[in-house]
Amino acid sequence: MDCIFCKLVNGDKPCLKVYEDEHTIVFMDKAKDVDGHMVAITKKHFENILDSDVDTLNHLMFAVKKVANHCVDECGYEGINLISTNGRSADQCVPHFHMHIIPRYNNDQVEAWPEFGGAKCEVEEIYERIRIK
Amino acid sequence: MDCIFCKLVNGDKPCLKVYEDEHTIVFMDKAKDVDGHMVAITKKHFENILDSDVDTLNHLMFAVKKVANHCVDECGYEGINLISTNGRSADQCVPHFHMHIIPRYNNDQVEAWPEFGGAKCEVEEIYERIRIK
Repeated sequence: MDCIFCKLVNGDKPCLKVYEDEHTIVFMDKAKDVDGHMVAITKKHFENILDSDVDTLNHLMFAVKKVANHCVDECGYEGINLISTNGRSADQCVPHFHMHIIPRYNNDQVEAWPEFGGAKCEVEEIYERIRIK
Repeated sequence: MDCIFCKLVNGDKPCLKVYEDEHTIVFMDKAKDVDGHMVAITKKHFENILDSDVDTLNHLMFAVKKVANHCVDECGYEGINLISTNGRSADQCVPHFHMHIIPRYNNDQVEAWPEFGGAKCEVEEIYERIRIK
C-alpha cells in the first residue's frame, strides 16, 4: 500500500522519532506550522478512529499520554493540544490513523482553537437526530 | 468541588446527553460555534489527559469512538474532528477532562484546523530537547 505513514512504520522513510513502542510511533511533524508539532501514528494501518479497533486506539492514546506527560514533566511545557482529523470531510490529509500533539507554554501566542464560523442549526434539532437512544 | 462538568455528571445541571455509559457522558455543546459540536467528559474528575489514569482515558476514547461511528454509520455524517485542550496554556476553559467531537459533512465549509502562525524554532532543535531516550 502506498501509505506514507506505513513507510515511516516500516523504516522505508526516515522520521524524527520522539517515542516508539510496539504499537505506536510519535514523530516530529515537519510542516513548520507551529513549534513542537508531533504526530502519533498507529503501527497497524487503519484509516482513522472510525475503522480502528479499540485496542489500537487505546495503544495510540497510551503513547499520546506518555508523550504529553513527558513534555510537561520533563521538558518545561505547560499544556498540550490534541487534534485528530478523521475522514476527508474533516480535513484528514494522510489516510492513516494519527493524532497531532502540540505542546504549549503559557502565553506562547499560539492559537490552537479553530476559527469556527458559527452554528447554522438549532442545537436541539441536531441533538434529536444524533443522540443514541 | 465547584466544577461545572461534575455538576453535569451528578445531574445537578441539565445537558443534552447524546451518549452515556458508566464512565463517560457525551453531550451537546451549546456554544453555537459549529453545528453538531459535542463534548465527551469523564465521570471521574480529572483535570485533563495529564493527570487522568489510563483506564479513564480508555473509557473516554471508547465513548468518543462510539459516538463518532454512530454519527457516520447512522446519521449521515462523513467525518469527525476531535480536539482536546489540556492545561490553561493550551486554552482549556473547563478544568475537567474532556474531548470535543465535531461531526462533518463533505464541503460543509467548516474550518476545523487551527490557524497556526508558523514555527519559530528549527524542528531538529526541539526534537533533541523532547525526544524520549
